[in-house]
Amino acid sequence: MFFQVIDILGTIAFAISGVLIAMEKKLDLFGVFIIAFVTSIGGGTLRDLLIGNNPVGWMQDLTYIIVISSSVVFAILFVKYLKYLRKSLFLFDTIGIGLYTVVGIEKGMQAELMPVICIALGTMTASFGGVIRDILCNEIPVIFRKEIYATACILGGMSFYLFDLLPIVDAYANIGAILVVIIVRLLAVKYNITLPSLYTNQEKS
Amino acid sequence: MFFQVIDILGTIAFAISGVLIAMEKKLDLFGVFIIAFVTSIGGGTLRDLLIGNNPVGWMQDLTYIIVISSSVVFAILFVKYLKYLRKSLFLFDTIGIGLYTVVGIEKGMQAELMPVICIALGTMTASFGGVIRDILCNEIPVIFRKEIYATACILGGMSFYLFDLLPIVDAYANIGAILVVIIVRLLAVKYNITLPSLYTNQEKS
Amino acid sequence: MFFQVIDILGTIAFAISGVLIAMEKKLDLFGVFIIAFVTSIGGGTLRDLLIGNNPVGWMQDLTYIIVISSSVVFAILFVKYLKYLRKSLFLFDTIGIGLYTVVGIEKGMQAELMPVICIALGTMTASFGGVIRDILCNEIPVIFRKEIYATACILGGMSFYLFDLLPIVDAYANIGAILVVIIVRLLAVKYNITLPSLYTNQEKS
Repeated sequence: MFFQVIDILGTIAFAISGVLIAMEKKLDLFGVFIIAFVTSIGGGTLRDLLIGNNPVGWMQDLTYIIVISSSVVFAILFVKYLKYLRKSLFLFDTIGIGLYTVVGIEKGMQAELMPVICIALGTMTASFGGVIRDILCNEIPVIFRKEIYATACILGGMSFYLFDLLPIVDAYANIGAILVVIIVRLLAVKYNITLPSLYTNQEKS
Repeated sequence: MFFQVIDILGTIAFAISGVLIAMEKKLDLFGVFIIAFVTSIGGGTLRDLLIGNNPVGWMQDLTYIIVISSSVVFAILFVKYLKYLRKSLFLFDTIGIGLYTVVGIEKGMQAELMPVICIALGTMTASFGGVIRDILCNEIPVIFRKEIYATACILGGMSFYLFDLLPIVDAYANIGAILVVIIVRLLAVKYNITLPSLYTNQEKS
Repeated sequence: MFFQVIDILGTIAFAISGVLIAMEKKLDLFGVFIIAFVTSIGGGTLRDLLIGNNPVGWMQDLTYIIVISSSVVFAILFVKYLKYLRKSLFLFDTIGIGLYTVVGIEKGMQAELMPVICIALGTMTASFGGVIRDILCNEIPVIFRKEIYATACILGGMSFYLFDLLPIVDAYANIGAILVVIIVRLLAVKYNITLPSLYTNQEKS
């Protein structure tokens, strides 16, 4: 129940972020809907394809389509006011990637894959919807360029396996990993922490 | 038999549209062939991957490869005259998306998926070849920006389920849905109907 | 054993070529790693998805992740010296596409697919990692524009089936096909051979 609420909040946040980017690109209604949809379920779809979970999740449970469609309508109607919600959206998005990371890890474990692969699947679930969104909008994916985003998912995934070694209930390892993702990202944004640059200042300019 | 002829005409139309766009981008022979191929079978391939129909269709029936290869050779040789065929090409393309929509819906029904998912699969079959083509050519997909295209597929898909409620033979529901797609698109192009704009004139400029 | 060594050299070469292109685009550490990874295993992953080999190969054998990660670290540290290695890299890459072509064909044969499909799968295994890399970096894939690259794979694939008709051990047909790919590419680069142009000089300018 707790997870479902967070899952839906994450889906909403991803869908709205898709709408905002699609509208910046002046896409039409259909384009906006597809971008919102892909941002929300793209990462999980890629994960399911790679594992071989077919038909993929959103084809078997209409919740996602309903939540995303409603979010699109809402976001289009209230696009002018969404800037006041930016902090809430950022929070949903951050909670969303935390949850998606753990969902991806769990799916990998069900398929009996190795920990490093499961962490990769978790990171993919959380971040590749945004990658596909950026490709469709003809941009170099933003997570390849700045911000601790995927890195937060990777750290959260590693901590999941650390927590798993402790003599605690499984659910706590889940919640702990989600919190690590969220805290790492919040701290990174608050203190403007990025990955160490590969380039000298001269090269950058 | 009737369906096969239409299917092949649709494949030809999609392949030729791929050649024209690839040649505008000055791709080489291999690039032109790949773009033609992807435009023709990309939508169906994505659909089959999502449902879990592996190996995907065109791997098991050489007809597609033969038809597409011949179309590429033909289009390259006669590219200068193709502009006179623009109306015929548009018609093939329109018939093609009608048929592909119904093919996609049927595949979804075989996998026992819900109607809304089947309609999505039909739309994807008809329109995502073009999306992949545009991504490979480094363009924002044209169907996200203008023209009633995917929308015609969605309306056709809905009418399929309406026709299905009537006491008529299955084949008639198929043909009816194909006609709806075709008629909606022809009318939209003739009367220059687009989706309602999400943007004010000021924003557009 | 021989094959494994070549496979690893190919993986290294692809990973390094990914790093070089990602660093030109000024991607961050995560972006560089993902591009290197995708360049190395993207073609094989697409092949496995199309055939229905799930979970895909690199999820079940950590060798690839370890080799690619090490190559990324190495390439980032020594990026300044890599230009002196350009010839060696080109050679690894060329050997890599030869091997990947044959690996792809073998996978297709295991799935009992037709020769022309197997050749397509081989070509895809060898060249589509680079296509995905270019899409993620927001470029029109380089293999669609110039150089005998995919064409070398196709010729190698055809020769595989020719060699297969001869009364020789299977391994020799494999090695023969790999050599054809390598020789065709080396000759094409040395003598600056390209596919016949589809465009007149006027159109090009």
